[in-house]
Amino acid sequence: MKAPSIVEDPIYHRVAERIEGLITAGTFRSGDRLPSVRSLSRDWRVSVTTAIGAYSLLEDRGLVEPRPRSGYYVRPRRLSPEKLPRQVEFESDPVEVGCAEITEKVMDASATPGIVPFGAAVPADEILPAAKLAALYASVIRAAGPAAHQYSMPPGLPALRVELAKRLLGAGIAVSPEEIIVTSGAIDAVLLAVKSVCEPGDVVAVESPTYFGILSMVRELGYKVVEIPVFSDRGVCTAALAEAFATHPVKACILQPNYHNPVGSVMPDAEKKRAVTLAKQHGVTLIEDDLYGDLHFGEKRPRSLKAFDPGDTVIHCGSYSKSLAPGLRVGWIVPGSRYHRIKSLKYATSLANATASERVVAEFLQSGGVERHLRKARRIYARQTHEIREAILETFPGAIRVTQPEGGFLLWCQMPEGFDSEAFALAALKRKISIVPGTIFSASCGLRNCFRISCGFPLDDRSRRALGILAKLAEG
Amino acid sequence: MKAPSIVEDPIYHRVAERIEGLITAGTFRSGDRLPSVRSLSRDWRVSVTTAIGAYSLLEDRGLVEPRPRSGYYVRPRRLSPEKLPRQVEFESDPVEVGCAEITEKVMDASATPGIVPFGAAVPADEILPAAKLAALYASVIRAAGPAAHQYSMPPGLPALRVELAKRLLGAGIAVSPEEIIVTSGAIDAVLLAVKSVCEPGDVVAVESPTYFGILSMVRELGYKVVEIPVFSDRGVCTAALAEAFATHPVKACILQPNYHNPVGSVMPDAEKKRAVTLAKQHGVTLIEDDLYGDLHFGEKRPRSLKAFDPGDTVIHCGSYSKSLAPGLRVGWIVPGSRYHRIKSLKYATSLANATASERVVAEFLQSGGVERHLRKARRIYARQTHEIREAILETFPGAIRVTQPEGGFLLWCQMPEGFDSEAFALAALKRKISIVPGTIFSASCGLRNCFRISCGFPLDDRSRRALGILAKLAEG
Repeated sequence: MKAPSIVEDPIYHRVAERIEGLITAGTFRSGDRLPSVRSLSRDWRVSVTTAIGAYSLLEDRGLVEPRPRSGYYVRPRRLSPEKLPRQVEFESDPVEVGCAEITEKVMDASATPGIVPFGAAVPADEILPAAKLAALYASVIRAAGPAAHQYSMPPGLPALRVELAKRLLGAGIAVSPEEIIVTSGAIDAVLLAVKSVCEPGDVVAVESPTYFGILSMVRELGYKVVEIPVFSDRGVCTAALAEAFATHPVKACILQPNYHNPVGSVMPDAEKKRAVTLAKQHGVTLIEDDLYGDLHFGEKRPRSLKAFDPGDTVIHCGSYSKSLAPGLRVGWIVPGSRYHRIKSLKYATSLANATASERVVAEFLQSGGVERHLRKARRIYARQTHEIREAILETFPGAIRVTQPEGGFLLWCQMPEGFDSEAFALAALKRKISIVPGTIFSASCGLRNCFRISCGFPLDDRSRRALGILAKLAEG
Repeated sequence: MKAPSIVEDPIYHRVAERIEGLITAGTFRSGDRLPSVRSLSRDWRVSVTTAIGAYSLLEDRGLVEPRPRSGYYVRPRRLSPEKLPRQVEFESDPVEVGCAEITEKVMDASATPGIVPFGAAVPADEILPAAKLAALYASVIRAAGPAAHQYSMPPGLPALRVELAKRLLGAGIAVSPEEIIVTSGAIDAVLLAVKSVCEPGDVVAVESPTYFGILSMVRELGYKVVEIPVFSDRGVCTAALAEAFATHPVKACILQPNYHNPVGSVMPDAEKKRAVTLAKQHGVTLIEDDLYGDLHFGEKRPRSLKAFDPGDTVIHCGSYSKSLAPGLRVGWIVPGSRYHRIKSLKYATSLANATASERVVAEFLQSGGVERHLRKARRIYARQTHEIREAILETFPGAIRVTQPEGGFLLWCQMPEGFDSEAFALAALKRKISIVPGTIFSASCGLRNCFRISCGFPLDDRSRRALGILAKLAEG
């Protein structure tokens, strides 16, 4: 969509400089919509051609970007590569998962009132479709009568599975409602998937970093893990994946292909294809946690890993915990040939999901309000993530590196070697600020110089002050 | 409460005989309230003294029973011991749990529309407090705003834990809200409990028969089991418990002390005390599933096992799935010293419960409607259980033995040796009737001549016809 540079006339340059000045001064911030060509022409008394020329010049310089049918926006600051987190070396032999204690401390903190919530990956209250959900609970439960309170046995409410099957098409997955099992969130789905493939003592490949809940689960289930590095620009390192599959008796591999937690990366389609091919070659089951896939900042949803699996290599897992509301506990699994095994496991481990939640989500999906909500949520997350990122880069010591995700609402920050993110997290908690230290995203308790910042909440005065405090703590 | 026999005068006898005739004819059935002394005196033109005398005579003969402030009721038929199920001998060495396939078939059947539901242990729609719950979902979720849709992280909603702590007093358990963790139903609670104590390969003692969901869970978690017999008149055999604890390296023992599923037994207080003492002596953790304790037909709730544990031997688990509504998925655990371990496990395996359910149950408990609902449910279950039991004894071959529970809504039926309850269950399914075969209540797939009948639904024309079909199938 990039417009060609058409201007050399100095008047364009002067207008462009004034706009750049407003961006530098913070009048327009990262992600903000800039004045339209028409209003610029009117307000600054320049011709439409001059206004277009100025924006084209700024676009060439990487400061603004056009969006179709919407105008020009302040472009998130493109960093030179040295501002993005570096890849680190680590042990790749199977290890048992460590670091449990601090995980719980961090999770407990997220539930503490008065905490500035850069820790847990939860949406701000304002983003939740609370009024819509309240209306649905009122109408749906009354209309369903007693059926709303009976068991919803596996595979879960048929009407919900129909809606899920429709929505999965958007992720490139074509399955019938009979091929889906409803779960209590994504963690339940991933647990069922991995248990359907592995026995205690088996080797599971996990990303490093990866969501600490996956590590806690893998630890509790008694698996050994091989860690595979994740790149912030293309997700899991498929070369390392190939080596791990060739070297170790890997049974399953848990990947977050889209808007990875915590790194924010998306695997390009070619990498997704490659991962599926590799896994198939080595008889490894890929377990895909596509929890954040619907929260894309750009126009299009990235495709799921399962979309590249013509066979039975990928078990797809997802949830509405991040895209609709965490409290619903409605997730799903597309188990392929492991359908019956996973349905039995669901009976044996949790029996059934909350029936009211299943009915409310089914009706929400059916009545068509979900896409409107998602458009709003994506816009807010894009803005919050960009703003908080900019604020971190402004406030923190210059050595910090921060990811620049194009979906989700998480930032992964890297400080120089020697930085202790656990001490940092505990000091922050004392100041009533939560962040998540890097160690708990690593099976081997590495990544000590990294931490995760959630952008589920807006950058307001309070959180801006909190970032200032964090920056001081980080300086040591 | 038994009144002394005060009558010898023939007029009492004649009145008593007439009442007995009405009972025999089925005008008044097991559990029915009989005409009051006053209305009997008025309608039959006898003196109040004569009416009292007649009831006292019938009471002496075991046909009616007085209930305080309520009048006289038809007493459930007291059977001679040969009508109650016999204890069977079986292997007591640790075994791996078998018989998974048919369990799922039976569970799937319970969700099939048009099935006569003697299978799954679920309440009839009419018993559920659906209107009340619908009103609560409407008001509670609206009032809570976005908080109703955020994560409710372990240990669960504080307001709910306060109400649970209050109600646990009724079971003889005095704990603070801080000593309770909210779970997704009882099965989640028992799973967390057993995982907090055992590693795969460890030996767990289970009752035989026991709820098949416990056996599926134990199988999935990779434990070995020792089976301990259950008596229908006093619950688990504590002598066998003592022997098992002395002989095998038992780590944990899962017991249903009150209205056992499927046997319906209640452990007398002395037996509860003895089980706790034995477990303490041998360092075994008792895991109590007190799911049915609130559904007592008599005046008083039986005490929980935990009520007899001054120390840290018993982990108490419960749920509102049977007493309020299955679809809520609200249970709880009182983990004692394993609190932190179990909270971590909850984070790692299911993260959080459905927030809306927790809030609705908290408000239901707080607003005081639960006890009224329970009084109604107990009355209905008492009636249904007695009626279905009577109908089975009338319809089935004379050799059948049936338990006579004093709470819950389950009947355990025993046919002569050689009877194949799995074939029986599959034949019944073909006739669109679900029952649960005995084998799936046994880790070693024994108890083949037994089956379970759920009395969650009323004995109407349809289910009476179904019992007739079952009786014919049972005759072979």
